[in-house]
Amino acid sequence: MQRVLVDMDGVLADIYLQMMEYEYRESGMKPSEQDLYGLLEESAFPSFKKFIRSKGFFRTVPVIKDSIEGLEYLNSKYSVLIVSSATEFPDSLKEKYDWLSENYPFISWKQMIFCGCKDSIGGDIMIDDHAKNLNFFGGRKILFTQPQNVFIQDASMERVDNWREIMNLL
Amino acid sequence: MQRVLVDMDGVLADIYLQMMEYEYRESGMKPSEQDLYGLLEESAFPSFKKFIRSKGFFRTVPVIKDSIEGLEYLNSKYSVLIVSSATEFPDSLKEKYDWLSENYPFISWKQMIFCGCKDSIGGDIMIDDHAKNLNFFGGRKILFTQPQNVFIQDASMERVDNWREIMNLL
Repeated sequence: MQRVLVDMDGVLADIYLQMMEYEYRESGMKPSEQDLYGLLEESAFPSFKKFIRSKGFFRTVPVIKDSIEGLEYLNSKYSVLIVSSATEFPDSLKEKYDWLSENYPFISWKQMIFCGCKDSIGGDIMIDDHAKNLNFFGGRKILFTQPQNVFIQDASMERVDNWREIMNLL
Repeated sequence: MQRVLVDMDGVLADIYLQMMEYEYRESGMKPSEQDLYGLLEESAFPSFKKFIRSKGFFRTVPVIKDSIEGLEYLNSKYSVLIVSSATEFPDSLKEKYDWLSENYPFISWKQMIFCGCKDSIGGDIMIDDHAKNLNFFGGRKILFTQPQNVFIQDASMERVDNWREIMNLL
């Protein structure tokens, strides 16, 4: 059975939607999607680091559209691992665990990896919204569209815009 | 630079010493080291699952002798990753992060991996006290002696009894 590595933030967790909400509450600013094109999250949102360090940010983040159905489908067909950069923000570890367990109850603790860098995790297919994570990966690379990566054109990666496309592709 | 995967419980964290203390406080029992030979931790200590789920167990575990000097040495010579099975006990995640950061301050968040299974983590050398983790590993396997593994004889693994031996070997 092929192993699929699935990123959390930006693929399962709708970090942008959550950031927009936090930003609006903080500053009253509501950037359009185009405003965010090509900017890494920390450049797009002035208070990014403060927001993701704040209690509850990851525990209450909305799920990305169709990701529950999509991940359940992948989980029935592949060996799925959820691989999330989390150790930079250690308070997020338990929140991410609880959030995953609540929203994707078919994913067990055995399928979760919380790490700092992803370059030592092996698999056949990797789905991530950050090109820097896919760059080091030896298998099939699937780039999940988010505003920060819209300008990336890389022939080594397949781009998907949503979970419907993942289900058609895999 | 070669990548070394270093296990936490039983290689850095002296789980047995901590278990003995918890067991003695709970039941007054003080098993000898020989009593524990060949038994997995959950068989050796009747309240194992209760102890490791209790708040503070991982945060206050003693460090294994010479592991601070030993890990600092490895860290100067290799690309070190600390790989710990932790997601089965999600409350341990933050405790493990805090404990590592306090006792091995030269290890950064980028070098930590908290997972359920270790079989997707790649590297050149793996140091672990559980043969089940080494079995799936493709590189050089180093078995760190603990009471549960004393009867294991496996030609694919090199056995070390302490951190001095690791420093001589690597």
